[in-house]
Amino acid sequence: MTIRNTDSSPNIESLLQASELFMFQAIGQTKAKSITVVMRYHIESGGSRVRARLALNAGLALNLEKKVNVALSACCELIHNASLLHDDIQDGDEMRRGRLAAWFKFDINSAMCAGTLMLSAAYKAVSEVTVCSPKLIAHLHQRTSDLISGQVIDVTSSASVINVKTYLDIAKGKSGSLLALPLELVMISANEFTALPCAKGAGESFAVAYQIADDMSDLQADLANSRTNIVGILENIGMSRSEALARAKLLAEEHLKLATEYAAKLPANSGAHFINLCEELKEKFDTSQPSSIENV
Amino acid sequence: MTIRNTDSSPNIESLLQASELFMFQAIGQTKAKSITVVMRYHIESGGSRVRARLALNAGLALNLEKKVNVALSACCELIHNASLLHDDIQDGDEMRRGRLAAWFKFDINSAMCAGTLMLSAAYKAVSEVTVCSPKLIAHLHQRTSDLISGQVIDVTSSASVINVKTYLDIAKGKSGSLLALPLELVMISANEFTALPCAKGAGESFAVAYQIADDMSDLQADLANSRTNIVGILENIGMSRSEALARAKLLAEEHLKLATEYAAKLPANSGAHFINLCEELKEKFDTSQPSSIENV
Repeated sequence: MTIRNTDSSPNIESLLQASELFMFQAIGQTKAKSITVVMRYHIESGGSRVRARLALNAGLALNLEKKVNVALSACCELIHNASLLHDDIQDGDEMRRGRLAAWFKFDINSAMCAGTLMLSAAYKAVSEVTVCSPKLIAHLHQRTSDLISGQVIDVTSSASVINVKTYLDIAKGKSGSLLALPLELVMISANEFTALPCAKGAGESFAVAYQIADDMSDLQADLANSRTNIVGILENIGMSRSEALARAKLLAEEHLKLATEYAAKLPANSGAHFINLCEELKEKFDTSQPSSIENV
Repeated sequence: MTIRNTDSSPNIESLLQASELFMFQAIGQTKAKSITVVMRYHIESGGSRVRARLALNAGLALNLEKKVNVALSACCELIHNASLLHDDIQDGDEMRRGRLAAWFKFDINSAMCAGTLMLSAAYKAVSEVTVCSPKLIAHLHQRTSDLISGQVIDVTSSASVINVKTYLDIAKGKSGSLLALPLELVMISANEFTALPCAKGAGESFAVAYQIADDMSDLQADLANSRTNIVGILENIGMSRSEALARAKLLAEEHLKLATEYAAKLPANSGAHFINLCEELKEKFDTSQPSSIENV
C-alpha cells in the first residue's frame, strides 16, 4: 500500500516532469560514466517523489516562480536519494523499491561515491534558483546534519538500549528532516520565515507517525532480527504486546494530529497537500493494522 | 619529508588560525555528538593545510576581504578532509597522519557519515562569504564531481589494466581537483574568471608530479600489493625498471614545468606560493630519489 499523493493542482504533473528532468541533468555530467550509471539506476528505481510533490504543491500555493519551485523540489529528492544510497550500505539492505539496492547490484564503493556526489548535486540545484540565498544553503546543511545525526544514532545504537525519547529523535532526524525540508525551502524562498517552525513541526511529527506505522507493519521481522521497533521498546518497559500496540497507535495518532495542526498554520493554504498525506496515513491506522507504507 | 609550505606573507599564520577556527565551528554543531567527535578527531590529526594556504596566499595577493578568504580556505580543507575520511574506508588504509584512520578507530558507518557531513559543511562555508555566488557553488560541485570520478576510476580499476592516460586522469581528478580548487575559488571571488583555466592547469599538473613522486617513494610496497604505480604501468608496456624510473621522473618534471607556467600566469602574482610548492617538489626530484611526501 502506498501513499497516494493526492495533489492539489493539475499543474503538479508537469512540474514533476520538469523536476525529474532537472534531477537527471544534475547527475548526468560526470567524468566517470560509471558513477552516472549508478546514480541513474538508483533514481530510476522510482519512489513516489513525496518530497518533490510536497515542495511543488507548497510552492504553487505561494506563487513561487516555476524554475525556483522545480529546483527546490529536485534538491529535496536528490538529498533524499543520496541518503538512501548510503543508508542501504550501512543497513545492509539488499533491496530497494523492488530492485537490487545499488551497492548490491554494483559495489559498495561505487554506491558510496554515488550517494556523496548526489548530495553535492543537491547543493548545486539550490544554487541555481534566481537568487542564491545563503539561508537556503545554511538550511540545507542544517537538515543534512540532522539527517546524518539521526542515522548515526540509529546505526551505532543497539536496539535493546533505545528508549522512546531516542526513538523519537531518530525518526525526527532520519525522516523528519527531509519531510520538513521541502516545506522549509519553499517558506524561505517565499520570504515566509515565521512559518519555518511550523514546517519543521509538521515534517517531524509526520515522520514519527510514519515510522510507527512502518514498525507496526514490520513487527515480526523487526523483533526476529533485533531491529529497533516502537512495540519492542514499549514491551521493554513492561507493557504487554496489546498494551504496546495500543500505545504505539495512540502515539502515532497524536503526532498525526500535531502534524496536521502545524501544516494548517502554513501561509496561503500551502500545507494542504501535507494535510492530505496526514489524512491518508490516519486512514491506515483507523481502518486496519497498518500495512507497509512504501515509498515515503 | 613534508612540503614546507613557504608562505609569502607573515599574515598567513593569523589567517590560518582563523581558518582553523572556522573549520572547527563548522563541524561543531550536530545533534549527535558522536559524529562531531569523529570529525574533530580527523581534523585534529593535522596535515599541513596545503589547500588552505594556497587559498589564503592567493586571496591576499588579490586583496580578498579577510572573511571571504578565510571561508574559502576552510571550505577547501573541509572537502579535502571529507574525501580522506571516505578514501581511507574505500582503500582500507588503517593509518592517517601517523594515527589510526577514523574508520579504524571508530567504525566504518560513523566515518562514512562524518565524511558526508563534512562535505555538506564545505558548502555551508562557501555560502557564508559576502555574496553567495552561484558560481562558487557550481564550481565546488564540479570539482567534487571530478574528485569522486577520479576516486571511482581508481577503486574500480585493477592496477594491471590502468594505462598512462588513465593514470593521469585519476591523478588530475583525485588530487588535481582539490589542488586547483583553492586557486579557482579565489579567482571567482576576485572576478578573475579568465584566470580559471590557468588555476585548473596548475592544480592538475602539480597533482600529476606529486603522484609520481609518491609512487616512486612507495614503489616496492605498491608493486608488492598490486597497487597502481606509474613505474609498474611503464614496465607493463615494455620498459625496464631503469627506463621506467627515468621516464616517470621526466613526466613529473614536465608536469612541474607546466604547473609553474600556469601559476605564473595568475593575476597579481597570486600564484607565487603555488610556484614555491612546485620548486620544493622539483628539488626532491633533483637531489635524490623522492621520499614520501606527506600531507599534501
